[in-house]
Amino acid sequence: MNNINPVDSYISDEIHEECGVFGIYNFDGKDVASSIYYGLFALQHRGQESCGIAVSDTSGPKGSVRSHKGMGLVNEVFTPESLEDLHGNIGVGHVRYSTAGASNRENTQPLVLNYVKGTLALAHNGNLINAMELKEQLAYTGAIFQTTIDSEVIAYLIARERLQTGSVEEAVKNAMVKLSGAYSLVIMSPRKLIGARDPFGFRPLCIGRRDNTYVLASESSALDAVDAEFIRDVEPGEVVMINEKGIHSDKSMAQPKVAKCIFEYIYFARPDSCLDSVSVYNSRIMAGRILAQTHPVDADLVVGVPDSGNAAAMGYSFESGIQYATAFVKNSYVGRTFIKPKQSMRESSVRIKLNVLKDVVKGKRIIMIDDSIVRGTTSERIVRMLKNAGATEVHVRISSPPFLHPCYFGTDVPTGDQLIAHNNTVEQICEVIGADSLGYLSVDRLSELIGGDKGFCDACFTGNYPIEPPKEDIRGDYEK
Amino acid sequence: MNNINPVDSYISDEIHEECGVFGIYNFDGKDVASSIYYGLFALQHRGQESCGIAVSDTSGPKGSVRSHKGMGLVNEVFTPESLEDLHGNIGVGHVRYSTAGASNRENTQPLVLNYVKGTLALAHNGNLINAMELKEQLAYTGAIFQTTIDSEVIAYLIARERLQTGSVEEAVKNAMVKLSGAYSLVIMSPRKLIGARDPFGFRPLCIGRRDNTYVLASESSALDAVDAEFIRDVEPGEVVMINEKGIHSDKSMAQPKVAKCIFEYIYFARPDSCLDSVSVYNSRIMAGRILAQTHPVDADLVVGVPDSGNAAAMGYSFESGIQYATAFVKNSYVGRTFIKPKQSMRESSVRIKLNVLKDVVKGKRIIMIDDSIVRGTTSERIVRMLKNAGATEVHVRISSPPFLHPCYFGTDVPTGDQLIAHNNTVEQICEVIGADSLGYLSVDRLSELIGGDKGFCDACFTGNYPIEPPKEDIRGDYEK
Amino acid sequence: MNNINPVDSYISDEIHEECGVFGIYNFDGKDVASSIYYGLFALQHRGQESCGIAVSDTSGPKGSVRSHKGMGLVNEVFTPESLEDLHGNIGVGHVRYSTAGASNRENTQPLVLNYVKGTLALAHNGNLINAMELKEQLAYTGAIFQTTIDSEVIAYLIARERLQTGSVEEAVKNAMVKLSGAYSLVIMSPRKLIGARDPFGFRPLCIGRRDNTYVLASESSALDAVDAEFIRDVEPGEVVMINEKGIHSDKSMAQPKVAKCIFEYIYFARPDSCLDSVSVYNSRIMAGRILAQTHPVDADLVVGVPDSGNAAAMGYSFESGIQYATAFVKNSYVGRTFIKPKQSMRESSVRIKLNVLKDVVKGKRIIMIDDSIVRGTTSERIVRMLKNAGATEVHVRISSPPFLHPCYFGTDVPTGDQLIAHNNTVEQICEVIGADSLGYLSVDRLSELIGGDKGFCDACFTGNYPIEPPKEDIRGDYEK
Amino acid sequence: MNNINPVDSYISDEIHEECGVFGIYNFDGKDVASSIYYGLFALQHRGQESCGIAVSDTSGPKGSVRSHKGMGLVNEVFTPESLEDLHGNIGVGHVRYSTAGASNRENTQPLVLNYVKGTLALAHNGNLINAMELKEQLAYTGAIFQTTIDSEVIAYLIARERLQTGSVEEAVKNAMVKLSGAYSLVIMSPRKLIGARDPFGFRPLCIGRRDNTYVLASESSALDAVDAEFIRDVEPGEVVMINEKGIHSDKSMAQPKVAKCIFEYIYFARPDSCLDSVSVYNSRIMAGRILAQTHPVDADLVVGVPDSGNAAAMGYSFESGIQYATAFVKNSYVGRTFIKPKQSMRESSVRIKLNVLKDVVKGKRIIMIDDSIVRGTTSERIVRMLKNAGATEVHVRISSPPFLHPCYFGTDVPTGDQLIAHNNTVEQICEVIGADSLGYLSVDRLSELIGGDKGFCDACFTGNYPIEPPKEDIRGDYEK
Repeated sequence: MNNINPVDSYISDEIHEECGVFGIYNFDGKDVASSIYYGLFALQHRGQESCGIAVSDTSGPKGSVRSHKGMGLVNEVFTPESLEDLHGNIGVGHVRYSTAGASNRENTQPLVLNYVKGTLALAHNGNLINAMELKEQLAYTGAIFQTTIDSEVIAYLIARERLQTGSVEEAVKNAMVKLSGAYSLVIMSPRKLIGARDPFGFRPLCIGRRDNTYVLASESSALDAVDAEFIRDVEPGEVVMINEKGIHSDKSMAQPKVAKCIFEYIYFARPDSCLDSVSVYNSRIMAGRILAQTHPVDADLVVGVPDSGNAAAMGYSFESGIQYATAFVKNSYVGRTFIKPKQSMRESSVRIKLNVLKDVVKGKRIIMIDDSIVRGTTSERIVRMLKNAGATEVHVRISSPPFLHPCYFGTDVPTGDQLIAHNNTVEQICEVIGADSLGYLSVDRLSELIGGDKGFCDACFTGNYPIEPPKEDIRGDYEK
Repeated sequence: MNNINPVDSYISDEIHEECGVFGIYNFDGKDVASSIYYGLFALQHRGQESCGIAVSDTSGPKGSVRSHKGMGLVNEVFTPESLEDLHGNIGVGHVRYSTAGASNRENTQPLVLNYVKGTLALAHNGNLINAMELKEQLAYTGAIFQTTIDSEVIAYLIARERLQTGSVEEAVKNAMVKLSGAYSLVIMSPRKLIGARDPFGFRPLCIGRRDNTYVLASESSALDAVDAEFIRDVEPGEVVMINEKGIHSDKSMAQPKVAKCIFEYIYFARPDSCLDSVSVYNSRIMAGRILAQTHPVDADLVVGVPDSGNAAAMGYSFESGIQYATAFVKNSYVGRTFIKPKQSMRESSVRIKLNVLKDVVKGKRIIMIDDSIVRGTTSERIVRMLKNAGATEVHVRISSPPFLHPCYFGTDVPTGDQLIAHNNTVEQICEVIGADSLGYLSVDRLSELIGGDKGFCDACFTGNYPIEPPKEDIRGDYEK
Repeated sequence: MNNINPVDSYISDEIHEECGVFGIYNFDGKDVASSIYYGLFALQHRGQESCGIAVSDTSGPKGSVRSHKGMGLVNEVFTPESLEDLHGNIGVGHVRYSTAGASNRENTQPLVLNYVKGTLALAHNGNLINAMELKEQLAYTGAIFQTTIDSEVIAYLIARERLQTGSVEEAVKNAMVKLSGAYSLVIMSPRKLIGARDPFGFRPLCIGRRDNTYVLASESSALDAVDAEFIRDVEPGEVVMINEKGIHSDKSMAQPKVAKCIFEYIYFARPDSCLDSVSVYNSRIMAGRILAQTHPVDADLVVGVPDSGNAAAMGYSFESGIQYATAFVKNSYVGRTFIKPKQSMRESSVRIKLNVLKDVVKGKRIIMIDDSIVRGTTSERIVRMLKNAGATEVHVRISSPPFLHPCYFGTDVPTGDQLIAHNNTVEQICEVIGADSLGYLSVDRLSELIGGDKGFCDACFTGNYPIEPPKEDIRGDYEK
Repeated sequence: MNNINPVDSYISDEIHEECGVFGIYNFDGKDVASSIYYGLFALQHRGQESCGIAVSDTSGPKGSVRSHKGMGLVNEVFTPESLEDLHGNIGVGHVRYSTAGASNRENTQPLVLNYVKGTLALAHNGNLINAMELKEQLAYTGAIFQTTIDSEVIAYLIARERLQTGSVEEAVKNAMVKLSGAYSLVIMSPRKLIGARDPFGFRPLCIGRRDNTYVLASESSALDAVDAEFIRDVEPGEVVMINEKGIHSDKSMAQPKVAKCIFEYIYFARPDSCLDSVSVYNSRIMAGRILAQTHPVDADLVVGVPDSGNAAAMGYSFESGIQYATAFVKNSYVGRTFIKPKQSMRESSVRIKLNVLKDVVKGKRIIMIDDSIVRGTTSERIVRMLKNAGATEVHVRISSPPFLHPCYFGTDVPTGDQLIAHNNTVEQICEVIGADSLGYLSVDRLSELIGGDKGFCDACFTGNYPIEPPKEDIRGDYEK
């Protein structure tokens, strides 16, 4: 679901990851385009606005890079023919979501560019916070920009550093010194595949293997999709380089402090992914358990708001002993391209997306688990649907703390005044959404979701940014 | 999911409903196209190949019927502009699935036709078994046919009967005398909306109301989608006629024996629908309970194959006390239009659609509930996926009896020799799919799914056809 | 050019032929779809709104007819793949133009239908004047209609007659007894190709041959396009039947009076076609010569309005001795799908289509030849363009008499009050269009265009209809 | 016609111009997108592969540039909606043809880029010969390239020069010092419109005016299309800058030697255009006259191969007194997107495009004028068509000298060995094409086409390149 054709506030009242990346190197010289295609399918939830693939044939003449990109979902942009044309045994892929202003063809990735040493293809997940400064510096030495994405700035830096140093991987490392913010990168030169993760490790990136093939992907579920075995995560600050000799790692850019995005576990990532050695599914079960401990309530059923609330609901049920149930039926045909008719009808677009199983909830006291509340409109409607279907009580439990601060590191959590929690107490929010009680996950217990690890970013809940954010919100300005 | 772009046997190894119908009459003269659009969205699972809407303005000149039809999903065929053009306060809609041979533009519905008394629009769910004879009789009196669907035969009969009688609803009744087989019809004349259901009641049809608006729909969940309240089901053999004076019922065509399709409850219908006063969700819970009673096994977890196996898994859990769990993550982006790349890769198309939550199943003895086994290939792969993810045992339970006979009444259950149960014992099937044990729902207990009612058709399991089927399988022949 | 996306009155100020037909029978069993495709390309000027092809394999099982139809030009509707799928050694094709109301998918041709004796495909050029009566009669015996074209009525009659008689060609003849109006038909049964022309011969139809292949086509230029040799015209009232034994002719339906459309020669047909043994090009040269005799004027140059005015201009030049010149450049990229921007600009859409060669006309006295004047707006603009470019005098000569009456026989010449000549004298028209003088071809001399033959229809100029036209203009009504 | 979907050698046997440019500045603040749209229509013959428009609103915030580009013809890429979105009173447009390798979305123009001083949009007609060197130099200072067109190199140079100088127009001039080759540029900064032409003036560029609006265009016929009056040509080496104060000219880059492409007059440009004060139509008339003087022959008719041969044929007729005639009918529906069916048929694709008027040529001795012979295949077929239609003699006259050398300055005249004249004498060519005689325009008399002016480039005929061409053919290499 994205914001291109919003049904209404129900559907647009969501937080989005901004990208997913995938890279692959087949040592046997076999084409990899279809594997990238499958991998991007598995990462589609990280970006539904545009996608692209670039490949290179390591046995061909230097620079024989082919690419295909477009606006839309993976299965809209690619055809069997376009995949067939993408000959090459090494490649990178990208799925992208973006805020409205920059939703255009120019901004699709992977960026494919020629520079002094040949061709480079770059796929980027994350967000720089010093993109404006870097862009200005580059412009003052004669750079021209044909997109409005910060990834182009990264590409420029790498190209410039390459002039001073002997290899692409060195150039990437040197560029990383100048980059500030979130970036998980997959980069292809005609003969090499490089993966890099910013020192804070905001966004995930992992390594897999299938026979004579190495794979890099934002999430481990994308490895499953290509039958690759999970090897390990790329560590924060690590640069891995895969060439015909194998895989090489450089961790010289690592730093003590890491700040992995905790919301990847709560909502963004697929439950069947494992990020930095932690199962996303288990972290959600744990969130539900903690909610049951901290916000217990007497009720008949625990239900999750599909799909992300289900695991936490299961966890709440485990901990509380209250029966888990399925209360909602989701219409999977109402997709990204759902078009709202001009003739309006009360609430239909919510109903068409989600319906309540009346027989399940009628006469029952319900604990409803959701992953977050942004503006509150969706929660209010879903609570109302449950009550209309005969639920006698609806107790809402949220598997994350309240959103209070914008995110500058690769998601679109908005500025405070668009967030219901910014101006309302929990009691007020409870009233707005019409619930009988409301409980959030406590900030104090977030680390339990990832096994007690403290190296995570919770700035959207606490305002404690791992890197000083820019004074003014530059996220929109960058586009200009 | 349909068979137009099959991923592979996993996805095509499914049984399909052949159609869904929707009708609406707004007494306040307001446009109904967007309501039909929402209604068809809710019925999309009943047919993903083509769809259409026809409307009439009861205040306009007689015969001002407008229609729009096309190949594809509801959100592919309709745009805000095409809906805007469909002015009219009375209308019918249709979604269609078909076997490959007849998948073309000519066969889309609603059929819109002119005859001696003006315009008629007809939407049909079901299958006639005497279509060939009727067609031949009509041809011998000079009829020409421009489609290969039996619905055109129904339209002809109504047009001919209308010559002899005083109203469309009488003509429908008189035509019903000649029709043999399954049909739930929604018919629009310029000033009337008519619903009719064959005397056996093979396919469902229900009536709803929203303020000054009457609605007819294949399933009650489509009423929810337009905020209409469920009034009652159209009874087998009943004809309802809605005009400016209200709703009128004629049950003179009813007969003692009814034969509602039991597989609607097990698989076809949405769980949030209520068909002939029975909740589909509850009937699935019951199927799970019966399986737990008849095929108990010691295990750690009960899991459902999404989406249709989940409710039965819940029922098995309730009855057995064994923990219910979610073992699979479904990729909702792999839709109808998923294109399989020409370059092949082992099993990826299954993996891309369904992934296992390894942390859930690892080291566990699993009871896996699915709704049916057609050829066995899908079951075999899913069992293997669970074992590869670490499940120590996989016990398969099927919430229906084995398929043994073809269906002639509106679904595509194939002839016996394409069905694994036709030539294999349960033990053999168990071996083929690699399960540790296998249990089917017993035919004897099917009636418990619908509260003990005996008026259902179980011919695909038993061969006891409510109407004598044609000597040779005419389903394909008709198309020629 | 058609009326779907009219640029403005310049482009829509044209008269349209309503259809072109093509048929082919290859005795060697080779596929004919690509030949039909080429043939329809050559007939594209007779209809740009929709087109279609139906083929049959005479060696296959009876009734294996395949067809492909769609809205748009031949090169928009067909792809190499769709042609590839059309296996068959016998086939018919159709191009269609229509008035706005009936411009939809249902009305595309060839009509493909099943009836008591199998499959029939029918392509029709012309217009019946008793379609409404026939339709009503058919409806009263239970016929249903799924299109709004009179060709469906013809199909019905043939199907009904076939019940009483022993062959399709007999059924066609019997149906012809009941049909009144204009029709050139190409009909395909699974093993036969039939051509028929109404007794008046309003619309052309000819026979060609290439090796072991017979071809039927609206114009002889379509024979050239498939390298076939012109054999002869199908005569008015003749039915030809081609089967595996060869070609058979039946002229029993012929009648003394024929009424070939004279405007085919003046404007509709291609100049490289030969209709009923008369070269279209020569008839236009003759029209120019007559204009030079009857409306001489002292001038420097004779120019034609492209493309149809050029030949007549050449003829005027031959007769008068005045220099022929090219004064206009036509932009061939402004096609059927030209989209007029919403932001307006004075007259640009004329300019974009036609520009004047200033160096040619500057300071010159010009005789400008065009084929007709409908509303006068186009002529006015072109005269103005010439004067703005420096022409000192512009004398307009029209190679047809003034339009005064509507056509009921297959073109869209409108009713009188939309025709400038209906309410204006020649002097008044001359003033409206800003010409220095204006001369029309005289009705008396029309027969000279076709070698003195008197068997033509000039009803749009004279009101002398060969068949009594319906009392009210039924052309639009039929659509309802 | 371009080479994307070649019908066969007939259609691909053509020489192509590589681009057309258009710019406009409306001082009244009115939107200009629709005017650019009309202008590009008039220039469509200069490039049919892709097109684009970029506009800026001078009253808006700096940098509010909007653009829309795409693959295809002007009427395929733009819709009323996309034009509506292009708000702005200043804008540039581009149509492009390219050789196959670089036919992709990235290479569409105008290039829109951000640099240190804001936004720049650039449209380029021509070809640099030092693009490779410049690109390498830029790469060695850290430039990255996202397209494979030399226009990106120009954009880079301007951006770099802008760092050192005070205005865009100065930067353009400074960049011109480094550029070698052919370029007519239209450049838009947010508040200025700039036109520039290389010092040799290879490609045309002119200035027009309509009320308070200035227009720049490749050809004067594009001024006609927007009702603008021709003011003057941009001179070779001139830079014009239009801002809110009016139009300013800088001719400091001019040099004594100019080298306007003579083939623009013979073939590329529209006959209704006037380039550098010479009417294209008149220059073609003159070419025909010279051919009549230098290659006289006794014959009955002079005919032109449409469309470009017609004017020269007229000139031949004037000079020789032999009757001019139209011998060919061109099918205007066989456009850029003509798809050749896989099933082949002898010669049909020529026939479908061009047919002979048999009545005109039968028994006649014909002089056939064409603009050029590339490989000879087309000429051979057309001569054969004339003879098959009954011409007793066919004398071919070519209104240009034989092609012998490749063009490096903005057209696709190929290398010598693909040119029939490279390895054959005139007598041999005459034999190959089956003509009774053959005569080319003499190189000596080329200057008469443009009034005796010697400042033209005839390198494709003579090998006398105005600038030393690169040692190896870099035209394809650049793409890599």
